[in-house]
Amino acid sequence: MPRVSLRQKILNAALEQFHIYGYNGTGIKDITDSAGAPKGSFYNHLPSKEACAILILEEYGASLPVAMLRDTSKPPIERLRLHFETMRDQSALNGFTRGCLMGNVIAEVGDHSDSLRKTALAGIEAWIRQITSVVSEARACGDISSSVDPDAYASFLVTSWEGAILLARASKSDFSYENFLSIMFDNLLARPA
Amino acid sequence: MPRVSLRQKILNAALEQFHIYGYNGTGIKDITDSAGAPKGSFYNHLPSKEACAILILEEYGASLPVAMLRDTSKPPIERLRLHFETMRDQSALNGFTRGCLMGNVIAEVGDHSDSLRKTALAGIEAWIRQITSVVSEARACGDISSSVDPDAYASFLVTSWEGAILLARASKSDFSYENFLSIMFDNLLARPA
Repeated sequence: MPRVSLRQKILNAALEQFHIYGYNGTGIKDITDSAGAPKGSFYNHLPSKEACAILILEEYGASLPVAMLRDTSKPPIERLRLHFETMRDQSALNGFTRGCLMGNVIAEVGDHSDSLRKTALAGIEAWIRQITSVVSEARACGDISSSVDPDAYASFLVTSWEGAILLARASKSDFSYENFLSIMFDNLLARPA
Repeated sequence: MPRVSLRQKILNAALEQFHIYGYNGTGIKDITDSAGAPKGSFYNHLPSKEACAILILEEYGASLPVAMLRDTSKPPIERLRLHFETMRDQSALNGFTRGCLMGNVIAEVGDHSDSLRKTALAGIEAWIRQITSVVSEARACGDISSSVDPDAYASFLVTSWEGAILLARASKSDFSYENFLSIMFDNLLARPA
């Protein structure tokens, strides 16, 4: 097994700490303690907590289960549903805690750090683009109404999912996820009659 | 004019500080400084930061523009649209900052304080109930399809709005609000053909 560098250990610990405790709830010492490293080592590898959070956000955005969206062995709408069901299952496994790191960062510190806000936005926009392309495919093959605007619907899917996450966290229940799946897939993205 | 008590001044300041800087980003001294009071006075009026945030969340939940939802001089769907347009306008006036205090608290500290999580949840559930009753009215008078489940749609409206707020804050734009209004009111809650 390749040896994980201390820098990567710190980044892995930071991802977990930020995700559990939030940006202001996480100190440098929490990160280095969790990485099993001395506090001073943080600044040998990363210039600041903000710079660290930017790298973490990029990593988080790239870790979303989007590969399945490109699996053309399945019909586009089935892939899309599977994508959200996978995230629902991940959230349930976490006991509906943690939520979406991008949404959390926007909610907590998006007004106070342009760099964090823009990094979270870039992650969300990249995610929306992946979904736009699946919605476009579904429209092209007639699986959904030709009146659906793929860009608008993709953005709506992602933002509505972000909101569903908040209610799932608050209620410790998957009701908001199931409600999202049912209204999205049985109504908005239903096969044209 | 009635004199505002020091306790109320502290609560007003706390609402603003929590809304701007978040829960962990706000210290007791930030609150008392903003209220023009000595730091020690906080604990003469409130037992803890958490107890203060609970009162603030309750106040915030009660301050949503829901009175217009009961204005029966307008058709139910028009009231509902106006409700969301009003919040869109408030958000734009704030330069798309601050967001929803209930969503912020869930995202930041919902996993770490059951009291804060449950207070935010109660606020959101009360809001959903107000909207459920308007959706029911619209269905009863045939303005929307009889297949619409008022509870499910009301919950979906609120959670999708919470997500739209996050993207508006990230992008500093009202696109997600307009997208919400268009998909909700021109599609999901459209008059039956």
